[in-house]
Amino acid sequence: MHTGLPFDDIRALFLHLPEPDGNAALAAAERENQLIKPRGALGRLEAISAHIATWQGKARPIVNRPLVAIFAGSHGVAAKGVSAYPSEVNAAMLASFSAGHAAINQICKTFDLGLKVFDLAIAMPTADITEAAALEEAACAATIGFGMEAIANGTDLLCLGEMGIGNTTPAAAIYAALYGGPAVDWVGRGTGVDDAGHARKVAAVEQALALHRDHLRDPLEVLRRLGGREIAAMAGAILAARMERVPVILDGYVATAAAAVLHAVNPLSTAHCLAGHCSAEGAHARVLDKLGLAPILDLGLRLGEGSGAALAAGIVKAALACHNGMATFAEAAVPEKRN
Amino acid sequence: MHTGLPFDDIRALFLHLPEPDGNAALAAAERENQLIKPRGALGRLEAISAHIATWQGKARPIVNRPLVAIFAGSHGVAAKGVSAYPSEVNAAMLASFSAGHAAINQICKTFDLGLKVFDLAIAMPTADITEAAALEEAACAATIGFGMEAIANGTDLLCLGEMGIGNTTPAAAIYAALYGGPAVDWVGRGTGVDDAGHARKVAAVEQALALHRDHLRDPLEVLRRLGGREIAAMAGAILAARMERVPVILDGYVATAAAAVLHAVNPLSTAHCLAGHCSAEGAHARVLDKLGLAPILDLGLRLGEGSGAALAAGIVKAALACHNGMATFAEAAVPEKRN
Repeated sequence: MHTGLPFDDIRALFLHLPEPDGNAALAAAERENQLIKPRGALGRLEAISAHIATWQGKARPIVNRPLVAIFAGSHGVAAKGVSAYPSEVNAAMLASFSAGHAAINQICKTFDLGLKVFDLAIAMPTADITEAAALEEAACAATIGFGMEAIANGTDLLCLGEMGIGNTTPAAAIYAALYGGPAVDWVGRGTGVDDAGHARKVAAVEQALALHRDHLRDPLEVLRRLGGREIAAMAGAILAARMERVPVILDGYVATAAAAVLHAVNPLSTAHCLAGHCSAEGAHARVLDKLGLAPILDLGLRLGEGSGAALAAGIVKAALACHNGMATFAEAAVPEKRN
Repeated sequence: MHTGLPFDDIRALFLHLPEPDGNAALAAAERENQLIKPRGALGRLEAISAHIATWQGKARPIVNRPLVAIFAGSHGVAAKGVSAYPSEVNAAMLASFSAGHAAINQICKTFDLGLKVFDLAIAMPTADITEAAALEEAACAATIGFGMEAIANGTDLLCLGEMGIGNTTPAAAIYAALYGGPAVDWVGRGTGVDDAGHARKVAAVEQALALHRDHLRDPLEVLRRLGGREIAAMAGAILAARMERVPVILDGYVATAAAAVLHAVNPLSTAHCLAGHCSAEGAHARVLDKLGLAPILDLGLRLGEGSGAALAAGIVKAALACHNGMATFAEAAVPEKRN
């Protein structure tokens, strides 16, 4: 076990997490029940409004500045042939985000969401997790801290996404380390590897788990050894959002790995997170179940880039529009339920 | 069996339905596979783009003028105590739609959807289906024709919704008549009836089925006898949309009844329809399965008003934004898959 100062600073954050605001939740629920609809008729939308109220700590939850943050990382393990695409795609995709060419750009335009992309040294891959720890402790802690900057310019809803060729392999390794079971249970097809690539991916996760097996009881060590920079940064972003009472929407298989690490440290630490969607990748549905999260959408996506979180942000915006914009039975003079 | 001229005119429409445009579908699929993402990574969004291309008959599917059409009807069977709300709610809700107070107004604002509300003589309820046919044949055919006007001012995506106190009872009766099985299997809680109200609802459906049992082999007779004006009008809107190559998004339990009637006449007649969501009402999931429709959303809604269809329209807009706005691998100089 490491006892270096950097991780201790991170650990200390878990001791001062803002709690759910019960008064805001109650006020939102009271308003919800006065709106001109049968009670509960907006289903999940009502739960979403309550969630945003609870974690923003506002009786009237508001999303005026939604932000999609994409963290991009580069992975040493990609050299083991675990992805269908070469690592050069990382730089090309960063350029595409800047040029407005990617899927996430179109989704952000559709729902009027802000977009920021964080390049986590994609020119410098992390160490290959089958041969060493992905990151030194100081680097991992610094990357978590860098991720905390995601919300520095202000947002009231943070959608977390990522990009990094090969990064479903570290995510699978993290899940296997946290939840146990054979590697193959956690490994999916990523961007579309063939059978041989899938076998290399399973082997890579098995090798990484074997190499690091004596150091996987501490979730932050799991992150440092088996993860990658974008996963560490997303963990930081989730923590920072919690400190500032910003609700979070997680994207898919890789983004959820960041939440899984935090959840393993303290299950209360991810209570402000919503699952944007259930990914078609690997065992994402099982992971969401472990985290107690029910996905808002289930559209068979497996793209990353925050795409599923951003689509879910459209639903969240609609939920709050209903919550804040609808009239009450009294205001609209609609007759109420009679039994 | 009735052989009056009006229904014959409706029946004739089924003989001249535009077919899927295979060339447009192929062109859209070819473009989809060149976009900068792993093939298939946008999951359902890709299928949605293909669906819109196929039914619009355009290689580049476009939704610039999406429209939510709400049809409002009034039901004689409401006097049997099948709803938790009094029929006066019908007029109050129409006023709320006009004033922008309802849930659907907020959702339309969020996703920039047009909204039209059609008052189908809510001051004049249809006959109580437990005592007579809901509509005369001429009135039913005229209402179907009225529904065809929904798209008269032009739209490229029609979201179909409804409002009408008591109307989950006729919808349940239609499903029971079309698909068989005991009435209770099709009856839900609607706007939230208590156990006694639910029992009255089941009894009403049973009585209606018994009364009309010798006339339920023809789906249009099922519609006329057990339905209501909003359901007939939505059937007309679906047919008119098909004739004009406008894709349709169905809302929930009641809107789907209109599609179920058409599907029973000719299963090909609803192929241009998407299921916006799976409702929490009654046996909606089973109905969608009968129609071969997979819902885009599953958010536990049971409101009507086109709310689920309008939320799904947001997803459809995002799908087309991706399809039309993303760069190709060649345009963006992103390296392609290597295996």
